[in-house]
Amino acid sequence: MLDHVELLGFAAAFLTTIAFIPQVVQVWKSKSTDGLSLTTYLIFVTGVFLWFLYGLNIGSLSMIIANFITVILALIIIYFIIKSKK
Amino acid sequence: MLDHVELLGFAAAFLTTIAFIPQVVQVWKSKSTDGLSLTTYLIFVTGVFLWFLYGLNIGSLSMIIANFITVILALIIIYFIIKSKK
Repeated sequence: MLDHVELLGFAAAFLTTIAFIPQVVQVWKSKSTDGLSLTTYLIFVTGVFLWFLYGLNIGSLSMIIANFITVILALIIIYFIIKSKK
Repeated sequence: MLDHVELLGFAAAFLTTIAFIPQVVQVWKSKSTDGLSLTTYLIFVTGVFLWFLYGLNIGSLSMIIANFITVILALIIIYFIIKSKK
């Protein structure tokens, strides 16, 4: 069974991962990325990818899965930002 | 000395923390939060706060500092989103 601290980490990982779903939905529906900072998402996706590599290194499945999903969501947002700037 | 894996974690924490600075600057300068999902930032700040608590629990200073800064940055963005919706 998970102890309280690991449960906290799991809840944290779950929230910081699903957090970007409403942003993806909003960008997808509105096709508008006004106000979204491309620099923020580029730095963020790089950082999250490093968290993913960190998870691989320490063998943490929850970190691997959570950060993999966040990378995908952030890449979708980046795609729309770059597309809308053209 | 930090080993390679901890250096990776440090770089990841650094990037996912500073990532939100350009977004704060952009929102601050433009006073516009069009396109930013409030739901995303509310879920995100909750998740990051849980990461902060997780850091406290496991006694990880880098997690405590990184997530504390990210909470502050996310709260500034949330403040501007709510203010602009009024």
